[in-house]
Amino acid sequence: MTIYRSMSTTTPVAGEPAPPAKAPAAKQGKKNNKKSKGANDFLLKTPKGTKDWADKDMIIRDAIFGSLTALFKKHGGMTIDTPVFELREILTGKYGEDSKLIYNLEDQGGELTSLRYDLTVPFARFVACNSISSIKRYHIAKVYRRDQPAMTKGRMREFYQCDFDVAGNYDMMVPDAEILTVLCEGLTGLGITDFKVKLNHRKILDGIFQACGVKEEDVRKVSSAVDKLDKLPWAAVKKEMCVDKNQPEEVADKIGDFVKLKGSIREVLSMLETNDLLKTNESAQKGIQEMLILADYVDAFGVDEFLSFDLSLARGLDYYTGLIYEAVTSASAPPENASELKEKAKKSVKEGDEVEDASEFVGVGSIAAGGRYDNLVGMFSNGKSIPCVGISFGVERIFSIIKARAAKELDSVSSSHTDVYVMAFGGGEGWDGYLKERMAVTNKLWKQGINAEYLYKTKANIRKQFDAAEKAGAKLAVILGKQEYSEGKLRIKVLGQGDDGDDGELVSEEGLTAAIEKKLAELDTDGLNQVTRLIRGL
Amino acid sequence: MTIYRSMSTTTPVAGEPAPPAKAPAAKQGKKNNKKSKGANDFLLKTPKGTKDWADKDMIIRDAIFGSLTALFKKHGGMTIDTPVFELREILTGKYGEDSKLIYNLEDQGGELTSLRYDLTVPFARFVACNSISSIKRYHIAKVYRRDQPAMTKGRMREFYQCDFDVAGNYDMMVPDAEILTVLCEGLTGLGITDFKVKLNHRKILDGIFQACGVKEEDVRKVSSAVDKLDKLPWAAVKKEMCVDKNQPEEVADKIGDFVKLKGSIREVLSMLETNDLLKTNESAQKGIQEMLILADYVDAFGVDEFLSFDLSLARGLDYYTGLIYEAVTSASAPPENASELKEKAKKSVKEGDEVEDASEFVGVGSIAAGGRYDNLVGMFSNGKSIPCVGISFGVERIFSIIKARAAKELDSVSSSHTDVYVMAFGGGEGWDGYLKERMAVTNKLWKQGINAEYLYKTKANIRKQFDAAEKAGAKLAVILGKQEYSEGKLRIKVLGQGDDGDDGELVSEEGLTAAIEKKLAELDTDGLNQVTRLIRGL
Repeated sequence: MTIYRSMSTTTPVAGEPAPPAKAPAAKQGKKNNKKSKGANDFLLKTPKGTKDWADKDMIIRDAIFGSLTALFKKHGGMTIDTPVFELREILTGKYGEDSKLIYNLEDQGGELTSLRYDLTVPFARFVACNSISSIKRYHIAKVYRRDQPAMTKGRMREFYQCDFDVAGNYDMMVPDAEILTVLCEGLTGLGITDFKVKLNHRKILDGIFQACGVKEEDVRKVSSAVDKLDKLPWAAVKKEMCVDKNQPEEVADKIGDFVKLKGSIREVLSMLETNDLLKTNESAQKGIQEMLILADYVDAFGVDEFLSFDLSLARGLDYYTGLIYEAVTSASAPPENASELKEKAKKSVKEGDEVEDASEFVGVGSIAAGGRYDNLVGMFSNGKSIPCVGISFGVERIFSIIKARAAKELDSVSSSHTDVYVMAFGGGEGWDGYLKERMAVTNKLWKQGINAEYLYKTKANIRKQFDAAEKAGAKLAVILGKQEYSEGKLRIKVLGQGDDGDDGELVSEEGLTAAIEKKLAELDTDGLNQVTRLIRGL
Repeated sequence: MTIYRSMSTTTPVAGEPAPPAKAPAAKQGKKNNKKSKGANDFLLKTPKGTKDWADKDMIIRDAIFGSLTALFKKHGGMTIDTPVFELREILTGKYGEDSKLIYNLEDQGGELTSLRYDLTVPFARFVACNSISSIKRYHIAKVYRRDQPAMTKGRMREFYQCDFDVAGNYDMMVPDAEILTVLCEGLTGLGITDFKVKLNHRKILDGIFQACGVKEEDVRKVSSAVDKLDKLPWAAVKKEMCVDKNQPEEVADKIGDFVKLKGSIREVLSMLETNDLLKTNESAQKGIQEMLILADYVDAFGVDEFLSFDLSLARGLDYYTGLIYEAVTSASAPPENASELKEKAKKSVKEGDEVEDASEFVGVGSIAAGGRYDNLVGMFSNGKSIPCVGISFGVERIFSIIKARAAKELDSVSSSHTDVYVMAFGGGEGWDGYLKERMAVTNKLWKQGINAEYLYKTKANIRKQFDAAEKAGAKLAVILGKQEYSEGKLRIKVLGQGDDGDDGELVSEEGLTAAIEKKLAELDTDGLNQVTRLIRGL
């Protein structure tokens, strides 16, 4: 028999990838135990780090997409669709160390292409290609990273991003403040309110590194060490700086004093403004000026309560040039008993059990992230750059949070959209099961836009038809009784109330669709809206 | 300057690929003339056979997806999402000669994978993986074929398919009849009514080949010659049979008599039922019995007027086992002046112009196609097969028909969804442009779910703000006058009526959102619905 391991909670990477996890050795080989061979003696499964989506998971994900799409449209966004693969040279040199995670297509003659790694670089390419001077665009699509997957925590090789970006020459920090508003509205609109948006500014960060004595050519690598502070203690990051990245200890210590700072924008700004080291640093002063302006705007939008100016936030990607941010929740951090889980995982590998790799002892990471990237479009258009700022929601991570939280409530949601089940009831001599009659009645409902099904059997007893109606999640049954229907009458019965002894309402064939529409209007029949309301109300 | 060739009408392949077109030689090299080099000296474009979607095209395509999604849900469909790439061996041996068109991912260590070629094989893999016994599923997603692209006619390397399939053991021809209904409803629901659905049955076709004397091992290759009858005259197909495929001339002639037959199901059936050659052929007789049953069911659904039983329809893919069909319109056939266009194209290549290849002298082909495939799931599950039947809509081909037909009407549709533009009007001493006030007012509208924008400038004159409002397609302006707003009053003005001298309505800040909602309800503000109605009404 074919066994397929259905993975219930999965969600992928937000704005950028988590660092490749060190997976327990020899795991890959073990895994195959759980997948059986198909008829032609090959593995019957999806590729590593990918999964199928179906049933309720699809309904929940659609509700998330719907909520975010409405949000993006509300803020003036229009959508674009770019190819899933790009010319390889478009992606080259945009992702720093993570370039090794790019999926290449085989050279089958013709152009060299690779699967997109994010939606940001294709967006910049699109803006440059079409000589666009300003656009607000959203894009909900899959991206690809050959990372070590951690399925249960939402780190996948194929996953969705929901991006909203503003390109154009505008006044300082104005679109940035709106993007932060979109971020906060996006999460609260999905019922997630226990989040923090960490903020930082690349110009301030770079200024700090300069002021602490980091050489220009070392800035990016010191920055990428700081980026690990959400996963590692300062001691480990300091070691990386001093040993791996060759910085003097006093430089690291000075940096250490800065990156511990966090608080409201105004609190942290007041510390930075009076800091002697930064007073003469041009980059830091520029960043401080921008943050001062931002503080006013986020007040106007009323989102300041969610924000935390956190100098330890560095973000991995090279292309950011200004404000950077990422949203985290309690699920973002590694579990408190991470080291214990790690030990357990090691043991179970020895015993031959399957371990999905590092998944159980890391958090889901950020659930949304982004920043300002003013030079990326210029890399595609001979330096004629268009400033951009954007946000990327990590849908699958958000999905896993919502699903874990609402598991019970979501039980009652149907994964199909069928409202009416058309059945026939009869027997005795000459009884042919009314198949053609069921077809014609169902067709009449379809023509009125009513979601309806019937059993694909010439004859079926009434029990089987009720079972099928229940499986389809139908709210109403339309019953063609042998005698009644021959007299032009049909019965409408509300389903899901058990055997209540109620035989339903008898209506004429002409009055059927009107009666159905009336009854449906009284019931809650839209699975998607039901889920959207549910998610929002959590 | 960067030049990007925007391709306005494009649409891809329906159920299966057109045969690789012989493209004019040396075309690839010429093409590059029109693409300029980016900053890093590489081509700034999407890969060959792919394109970006944006603006109104996206709105139209979304309307098509919306219409088809509603249809699939109406018929009890639920959706799934499978990875864009599959293990290579899953795809192997499913597509006959067209397997060479499969895109492989580079072997970067680990599993060998390929981009999906259609949605049908991944669906069968999904059904087998999850041991599903019955499902009605729809799937709207991109598929990939390394075909010779013909962009202007909708033959792309990356394109969308919209599939609806029914898997499960049901009574003969019942789901098949419903799928034909879905096909007809799908097209008429998109305003396309001038189509024909060609029908045939693999069992009848195979029976005819057997009865005409084709050897068992030659049946598939003779069938693939017949498949070309929509593009080639009988003489050319006969030549292929006799010369390339080694059939005796009398065999070809006998086949020729059959494949000329077409008409209503009952008309063609009455000819087949009395045909002496087929009387003793088991396969043909089985097929005839099934078609007799189908004739009753399509009557019940009232779709018989669209159907044409056409014995020349063969369909290329190996996996069909029963009823097969494809929908064609006048745009499906090659243009009447194809050979003239061909000459012109050859000349222009000589002169250095760009020719997109064979695109101008082929038709778009079928706009929807499908059939029954009872053995495909069994190939993945040790022979435990689940019968399936399905339909695939070629969205991009349908898109190009709709776009060509509605070009003028679609002019008036806005590609953004912005309803309200918030602006400030003032000047003189101390005038700061009311940026924070505009932010706060816009934020209030967002919180009420109203789609609103404002200009991202600290100060802007009223003209620039009206221009931006027009560009965004806003229906209403909310104006914060310097004096009026300081007294708690705002002005609402209906846009798009020229300079009508009307200064709009003055409302209190508290009454703003209610007044806006009332005005919007009076206007037609939903771009998508507008397009859906437009398309349907064409």
